[in-house]
Amino acid sequence: MTNLDKIFNPKTIAVIGASDRPGSVGNALLENLINSDYHGTVYPVNIKRSHIHAIKAFKTVKDIGEKIDLAIIATPAPGVPQIIKECGEAGVSGAVIISAGFIETGQGGEKLWAEILKTIKKYKIRVVGPNCLGFIKPSLHLNASFASQMALPGKISFISQSGALCTSILDWSIKNNVGFSNFISIGSMIDMDFADLIDYFGQDKKTDSILIYMESLQNARKFLAAARRFSRTKPILVLKAGRSNEGAQAAKSHTGAMAGNDAVFDAAFARAGIVRVGTILDLFHSAKALAMQPQPKNNRLAIITNAGGPGVLAIDSLKYHQGQVAHLSKNTIAKLDKILPPAWSRSNPVDILGDADSVRYQKSIKAVLADKNVDAILTILTPQAMTDPTEVAKKLVALPKKSGKTLLASWMGGEQVARGRQILEKGNIPIYRTPEDAISSFANIYQYSKNQELLNETPGATPHAFKPKTKENKKILAAVVKEGRLVLTEAEAKLMLANYDIPTIESHLAKTAQEAVKQAQKIGFPVVMKILSPDLTHKTDCGGLIIDIKSEEEAKAAFPNIVNSVRKHLPKADIRGVLVEPMIKKKYELMIGCKKDSIFGPAILFGMGGVAVEIFKDTTIGLPPLNMALAMRMIKETKIYKLLKGYRNMPRVDIASIQFLLYKFSYLVSDFPEIKEIDINPFAVDEYGGIALDSKIILDKKVIDKPIKPYSHLVISPTFK
Amino acid sequence: MTNLDKIFNPKTIAVIGASDRPGSVGNALLENLINSDYHGTVYPVNIKRSHIHAIKAFKTVKDIGEKIDLAIIATPAPGVPQIIKECGEAGVSGAVIISAGFIETGQGGEKLWAEILKTIKKYKIRVVGPNCLGFIKPSLHLNASFASQMALPGKISFISQSGALCTSILDWSIKNNVGFSNFISIGSMIDMDFADLIDYFGQDKKTDSILIYMESLQNARKFLAAARRFSRTKPILVLKAGRSNEGAQAAKSHTGAMAGNDAVFDAAFARAGIVRVGTILDLFHSAKALAMQPQPKNNRLAIITNAGGPGVLAIDSLKYHQGQVAHLSKNTIAKLDKILPPAWSRSNPVDILGDADSVRYQKSIKAVLADKNVDAILTILTPQAMTDPTEVAKKLVALPKKSGKTLLASWMGGEQVARGRQILEKGNIPIYRTPEDAISSFANIYQYSKNQELLNETPGATPHAFKPKTKENKKILAAVVKEGRLVLTEAEAKLMLANYDIPTIESHLAKTAQEAVKQAQKIGFPVVMKILSPDLTHKTDCGGLIIDIKSEEEAKAAFPNIVNSVRKHLPKADIRGVLVEPMIKKKYELMIGCKKDSIFGPAILFGMGGVAVEIFKDTTIGLPPLNMALAMRMIKETKIYKLLKGYRNMPRVDIASIQFLLYKFSYLVSDFPEIKEIDINPFAVDEYGGIALDSKIILDKKVIDKPIKPYSHLVISPTFK
Repeated sequence: MTNLDKIFNPKTIAVIGASDRPGSVGNALLENLINSDYHGTVYPVNIKRSHIHAIKAFKTVKDIGEKIDLAIIATPAPGVPQIIKECGEAGVSGAVIISAGFIETGQGGEKLWAEILKTIKKYKIRVVGPNCLGFIKPSLHLNASFASQMALPGKISFISQSGALCTSILDWSIKNNVGFSNFISIGSMIDMDFADLIDYFGQDKKTDSILIYMESLQNARKFLAAARRFSRTKPILVLKAGRSNEGAQAAKSHTGAMAGNDAVFDAAFARAGIVRVGTILDLFHSAKALAMQPQPKNNRLAIITNAGGPGVLAIDSLKYHQGQVAHLSKNTIAKLDKILPPAWSRSNPVDILGDADSVRYQKSIKAVLADKNVDAILTILTPQAMTDPTEVAKKLVALPKKSGKTLLASWMGGEQVARGRQILEKGNIPIYRTPEDAISSFANIYQYSKNQELLNETPGATPHAFKPKTKENKKILAAVVKEGRLVLTEAEAKLMLANYDIPTIESHLAKTAQEAVKQAQKIGFPVVMKILSPDLTHKTDCGGLIIDIKSEEEAKAAFPNIVNSVRKHLPKADIRGVLVEPMIKKKYELMIGCKKDSIFGPAILFGMGGVAVEIFKDTTIGLPPLNMALAMRMIKETKIYKLLKGYRNMPRVDIASIQFLLYKFSYLVSDFPEIKEIDINPFAVDEYGGIALDSKIILDKKVIDKPIKPYSHLVISPTFK
Repeated sequence: MTNLDKIFNPKTIAVIGASDRPGSVGNALLENLINSDYHGTVYPVNIKRSHIHAIKAFKTVKDIGEKIDLAIIATPAPGVPQIIKECGEAGVSGAVIISAGFIETGQGGEKLWAEILKTIKKYKIRVVGPNCLGFIKPSLHLNASFASQMALPGKISFISQSGALCTSILDWSIKNNVGFSNFISIGSMIDMDFADLIDYFGQDKKTDSILIYMESLQNARKFLAAARRFSRTKPILVLKAGRSNEGAQAAKSHTGAMAGNDAVFDAAFARAGIVRVGTILDLFHSAKALAMQPQPKNNRLAIITNAGGPGVLAIDSLKYHQGQVAHLSKNTIAKLDKILPPAWSRSNPVDILGDADSVRYQKSIKAVLADKNVDAILTILTPQAMTDPTEVAKKLVALPKKSGKTLLASWMGGEQVARGRQILEKGNIPIYRTPEDAISSFANIYQYSKNQELLNETPGATPHAFKPKTKENKKILAAVVKEGRLVLTEAEAKLMLANYDIPTIESHLAKTAQEAVKQAQKIGFPVVMKILSPDLTHKTDCGGLIIDIKSEEEAKAAFPNIVNSVRKHLPKADIRGVLVEPMIKKKYELMIGCKKDSIFGPAILFGMGGVAVEIFKDTTIGLPPLNMALAMRMIKETKIYKLLKGYRNMPRVDIASIQFLLYKFSYLVSDFPEIKEIDINPFAVDEYGGIALDSKIILDKKVIDKPIKPYSHLVISPTFK
């Protein structure tokens, strides 16, 4: 952290690769530093020059003879390792490596990368970059980048993984009067990553919110922990590229990093209290609202407008974003009846009519602000003969701030409303071109409030103590590995579940048709019979499963049918017999699974089972470990929840048992990093409880070959449990 | 049409209620007309004045002594009927009634409305309004509105149901260089409605596209017919407010008109070739693209960018809008390999790197334009040291137009890209602030191409001739009505289906438990038994249905169980016995229903049956009559289609039978406007065909009391069949 402060609050800066050649990066860097009000000393470093722009230049950083806080390096990649070494020897605290040509270019670059990494560890130099634009800190008038403009001062810290996007956003922000406390192009992150910066900005009093443009993520758990710490008190908004598979593919080819499953990002961001936004404009529109206004306590929005149509569009947009149309109290309606002409809408949206003047706006807003049912107000104005956009803006800005409610505005039009817009922006009322933009921001900032609830949720109590037989499962896995297998049989998989207190169906192995009949008689008809083989992961597809077997004859016939059918499909399958099980008829079939995500590790998938998984995709994702509250959130996120909680004349199923199932399952996948993929499908459930009817476990060869610690030690936050 | 032309191409205009009082509407109207380059004569009319602004004023329109093409009326509502009468007597061709205070204010206003309606019919005066802003025709320099600005000339005709929105959009359009052929505030539509204007603009050579802001719709079929005619050659884009229930409610209270079901609007718009857009900006962004560029033939988009990040965001947005990421041909890749530095992305998005100059942009775009796999190109530019935004814009504009492909651009930033933006806009390349905005427009204009396919689709042949027994059904309905019922029994409903060649399950009535057993034996176990009563529409909810009855004993017990259970729930139910049916097990249960929409009449709902209807809402809506092609579209719009067409090891079901079912069903609901609500749920289907297992029909008291013609005469377009 001390070194970070040296980077972002430097007293002395060396520009290595400084130049006065017009159009060169080295020139842009130097000029940005010296042609500004930055109060510190800048030393050009260039092996070939004695002075640049009439400023004394040094051959190397070691020649400067003064302690350098920050070195900005813009020399060709091959020379950078040596320069970093010199920085280390000269006791430089931190560096920004602007140069590109390292990890993203293949073999040669990777070697340079490794050399730099070694050196900076040795000398404890903190590094931003490489392959970045640099950073800007407006409060210090410090433009340590080669961007040609200075950012405006403000309270947003912006971190971008794309340098090119930085230049666009910088240009845009100046035109739109959006200011920053820090503006950073983070590059390829050889050292300093999102998490480091989040932690650092968490201690920056000038930073009210963090905005991130992200293309890929390494050190996911570190990132989530940092984000979680920060978002307990201040918002982080992230625009992550690669939401679609095609986009993720493009991002991967662009950054060279793993893409990960985008839906897991959603789950992880929510868990860390991060607000994920959809578009570039959303990012900044929302930041504006966060910077200017108090957070909404709830999402009940009132709309005050001098035009009915835009009011309706605002409501449509609000519902699209799952907000609530505030229901005005009788008292408020009575107040408005006194203020407004008889033709007013008498409900929300509050249409104060086309001839509304500034006083009518002011009185109406005051009346609605006082309503307990209202958390936020969007004021819409269209230019009309009797409506002075500038005057209304002044009145809105002059309103007392004590309400603590969120105010947003949309002055719709061009030149006629331009002055009003400026007044609102200066008066800290976020202003949008259209009601839809305003509502989208409102939804995002409300999401932050909602995420905070989640961060502060009590974990909830389990129905009874949970004592998994971890050692028993270790034995099972050891035996499987010893056999040289990566796929568990259904019997083994079920045993692993049972050892973690997950109810599974009783299952009896039959090696002959006669044995099958006996087992079926013991269980009682109808029964289910299915193949037992570690070589089969989809039994149904090859005739390995027959249900609803009603009699001895049927059971007798089923045995050879199953075995022959599987033989036909997979002649070399290791068939270990046929499992005979009772035929369970429960109302709903759910599925619980877990796959390893390349970025976040194990990710739990839960939802409706059967074909619905693939057709309706009614599933949700959660990161282990789960507590009972988080498990409940997952359940509620599915559509099938509407049925599970009791629907029409169908009773509520035993939801606590599903919560507990998810809880136990999450510990199973955390405790055994050897598991690559695990599925319980179906998990049959009704009002009397749930039971796993089938299960599948596949092991991770990488982890078998080189064991790693259980994931349970990698909880997202120490305060999690 | 002649009179319409008089209104929109007037040689003589009377301003009735003209005034010189600053701030008054009468003054704004007069000033807009006289302080412009409009070439025609304007006559102020004011009962109290001899001259206004030094122009001779007349007491009434009759005193002018010249034939008036257009009267603009801005007097208080109570005087308007008399003024309209005078207009009629003076032979005025058309009028714009600016005044408000008619149908939207209740009793008094409605009377005035009726009087005006009577007069304009008598004198054949065409009227725009009342309660509107007027209209603007830039090509004639004619501002026949009280908006304070003149629209720019262009090729878009804009029709807005909200006057207030007009002023905002007008102000915005001037700032954004968007021009119009006609700009109309349509008001409450006492006479001229959307359809009239669409037909009129269909003959206007200066109109390339129509944009509509709609809050409510009357004369739905007339509107759809006009829209369909227009959209065969030119696009109509509609922004309809009231997408959410809450928004529709707000629109209703705002306009006083029926709201209708928004999902039916979607179906109707698609049927008429209308592109529905989501936001105000979408409307104009898309219009810009349509006005400036050829329509894309398909939706394969290539992206050329000097920044990887925005390229990824563009791909994400493209996939969100269900577009295709163009797959570049090997030939194109080879060409680009020669043009670009080695580090280029080698796929779409084509990242031409941060140091791209204008020549690199130009060559890359040319290479990609020549690719047969590409229908459109989005060029993205971020301001970089080596990239001159203005120069790249010039090169893009100078490209030969012969490719016929769609070009879009996003110059991201503020001042640095401002000049480039202007050049692109002037050069007919639509330019957007962000890639997301560009993609959203691309999706909308592609939707127009896709809609045109639908308009030109061949109807498809039915599997065999369809000869419904219409007369038999008339008899059934007559008998039901005679009994004083509005609800048909299940048996009657099924018979009506059978008469329309819809396969229904055989059903046998039992009046006693003994009869039930006999019927079940005849059918063969297992059977289904259910209550027969016109008083029950939800059998399951009150124990009126038992399935999977396997034996005589079960059947015997089922009879009293059903009857008693229903009695308990509905003591006064008219129980006519119990139906005994075979237990059909087919793979999928679908539902087909029809309800009357308050705006569009019968609307057919089709999709997955069972609880899925309410949980997954996997349904789609179509307007009758349907041909085989339209029926297929409905089927394809559902998610269950993925299963129906054959999924994994499950065979494709008999989809032609579902198509034909929808076809026949659509004629049934068209032929019998007496039907208020009809449901087939479930319609069980598998690879061998489908069968209706249950049905419900409820009649429309209004139509029973006052019969109307079958809907089949109201097909959307005469060219439909």
